[in-house]
Amino acid sequence: MTQSITIPSASDFHLHLRQGDMMRMVTPKVAEGGVSLAYIMPNLQPPVTKTEQALSYKEELQALAPDVTFYMTLYLSPDLTVDEVRKASKAGIAGVKSYPRGVTTNSDSGIENYEIYYPVFKAMEEEGMVLNLHGEIPSDLDNDVCVMNAEEKFLPQLEKIHRAFPNLKIVLEHATTSAAVDLVKRLGDTVACSITVHHLQLIVDDWAGQAHHFCKPVAKYPHDRQALREVVASGHPRFFLGTDSAPHPSHVKETACAHAGVFTTPLVLPYLCKIFEDIGCLDKLENFACHFGRSFYGLKQKEGFQDKKVTLVKQENVVVPATYEISSAQPQLGKVVPFLANKDVGWKIVENFC
Amino acid sequence: MTQSITIPSASDFHLHLRQGDMMRMVTPKVAEGGVSLAYIMPNLQPPVTKTEQALSYKEELQALAPDVTFYMTLYLSPDLTVDEVRKASKAGIAGVKSYPRGVTTNSDSGIENYEIYYPVFKAMEEEGMVLNLHGEIPSDLDNDVCVMNAEEKFLPQLEKIHRAFPNLKIVLEHATTSAAVDLVKRLGDTVACSITVHHLQLIVDDWAGQAHHFCKPVAKYPHDRQALREVVASGHPRFFLGTDSAPHPSHVKETACAHAGVFTTPLVLPYLCKIFEDIGCLDKLENFACHFGRSFYGLKQKEGFQDKKVTLVKQENVVVPATYEISSAQPQLGKVVPFLANKDVGWKIVENFC
Repeated sequence: MTQSITIPSASDFHLHLRQGDMMRMVTPKVAEGGVSLAYIMPNLQPPVTKTEQALSYKEELQALAPDVTFYMTLYLSPDLTVDEVRKASKAGIAGVKSYPRGVTTNSDSGIENYEIYYPVFKAMEEEGMVLNLHGEIPSDLDNDVCVMNAEEKFLPQLEKIHRAFPNLKIVLEHATTSAAVDLVKRLGDTVACSITVHHLQLIVDDWAGQAHHFCKPVAKYPHDRQALREVVASGHPRFFLGTDSAPHPSHVKETACAHAGVFTTPLVLPYLCKIFEDIGCLDKLENFACHFGRSFYGLKQKEGFQDKKVTLVKQENVVVPATYEISSAQPQLGKVVPFLANKDVGWKIVENFC
Repeated sequence: MTQSITIPSASDFHLHLRQGDMMRMVTPKVAEGGVSLAYIMPNLQPPVTKTEQALSYKEELQALAPDVTFYMTLYLSPDLTVDEVRKASKAGIAGVKSYPRGVTTNSDSGIENYEIYYPVFKAMEEEGMVLNLHGEIPSDLDNDVCVMNAEEKFLPQLEKIHRAFPNLKIVLEHATTSAAVDLVKRLGDTVACSITVHHLQLIVDDWAGQAHHFCKPVAKYPHDRQALREVVASGHPRFFLGTDSAPHPSHVKETACAHAGVFTTPLVLPYLCKIFEDIGCLDKLENFACHFGRSFYGLKQKEGFQDKKVTLVKQENVVVPATYEISSAQPQLGKVVPFLANKDVGWKIVENFC
């Protein structure tokens, strides 16, 4: 008996596609993973802070992946004005991403005190733009803050912003803790969580000494993973896919100070089939990966892409590639090691975008 | 003004000196770090389970470091008999090391249920041998056990063994949590903790993506580090130095799956001066590094070594070497990266073993 599943092409509401050669390698792989709508993070160098930058970046991405609908974000910083927010909204930019200072890749321009942004949040609320929060506070030894509790200690900030702007759509990105799940469930319909592929699979042990599993926020305790698994298994509509797929060449992972990020783009749906099957909720995959995010954001794919389907078949020896070369013309740029490299993921896309 | 400190040569009550070329590189560095008494772990390949093995290993080490007094341990396994314990004790072997199965380097022969060892513990108690516990239970997702709470969840085992054998000297090795500190303080005079150099310095953030700071047990929360710092600053006599210095070639650290271990042997006393100075308890260093451990164990240095002194001076630009080559004749064996490589440790041994 062959087990197969056919669902609409997926939406990834948290994606890093980088720049230059890395962008050229990674972007065509979005569709390969079964994803047709991608919400793109703005933490480039320099960060995407202006509408024109976002549109120009979008154009680059669309040329590389014509079948994918891209939605763009701006990087929240003190330079972001209310006028720029309104302009961005009119140009179809869907959200603004906030990074706490120093917490993750290219977040040095990030922020700590949200009140200075209240005029911007007000404009976003009026425009229907989404606030995407990297929900961690910076480590602080005097106050017992470290990577293991940085998300939980951020949650009062999320609640405070929500109370101040109850109609502002807020996504707590890449949730990793039971505390985050509990809070977001408790808050109103305007607050949601994105959940990555890898945080449904990993715990702290998996990144202890394992650079390719090291990401920010770090994976936490078994009970935290269980809370993520339970909320997706429950079919809660405010918890949806955002992979946070973040490619780095292996030479900046397998080194003394590894860069943070897990690369899942090329195999998003096969990974998810495997994990949802393990959890025992394969029937919840379609809503999690395809519908809940679009519905929360109110975003559609571009014309002609509404009915694309992806079919996956369960089979043995679907081995994840060991690496992806960044550029065959420039081998010195290195290779990216994907999530679960060399492992049997057990599911394969047999028809894509049909 | 020159700041200097003169103390007796130190005792390291938890040391890995390996075998073969690594042993030949590392062992002479024990004295370089200001250490003249070393208590050697038995997790070789194969583990040291017999008196003869331990004595033959001791002979190898003494030939490489004639100024150092070595005390040996046996590896606790179901093969260890009461007769072997008595024989070992008569031969001067000072302790038996217990590793939970699968928790750290070469611990596959380790154990989980201590009651099967009660006859051995009884004999050790009678002989005055020390039980050295690697205090972690194996990770278990169903019971929320992971590397972050594996020590705390082990503590009931420690208490149970102590209650069964109140006169058995037990050392909870390389304590990393405030919970461990609290329990050991609460238990009687026969229970002690060794504390490493690196656990007085690191927290979880420091090994997140940083392979050279990855060790088992992993460094924990800021409040845990604070508890370790406070107990050494308090001058508690049952908390003393055991470095757990564990060299690995950099190619098995800077890779996808890093080996666990931090290498501190060549600079033990300079590191400790720096850390104790930062904590503000340089006056407590001598007891922690030189006296408390020997006193708990009741061990002496060999004849003629009682009065050796080490003088350290505080100065700038005492830069920790980037690497130590394992064998100049065999460069392919690689190099070991020491703790705080390329960093200014701020203290230098100017007279050693005088």
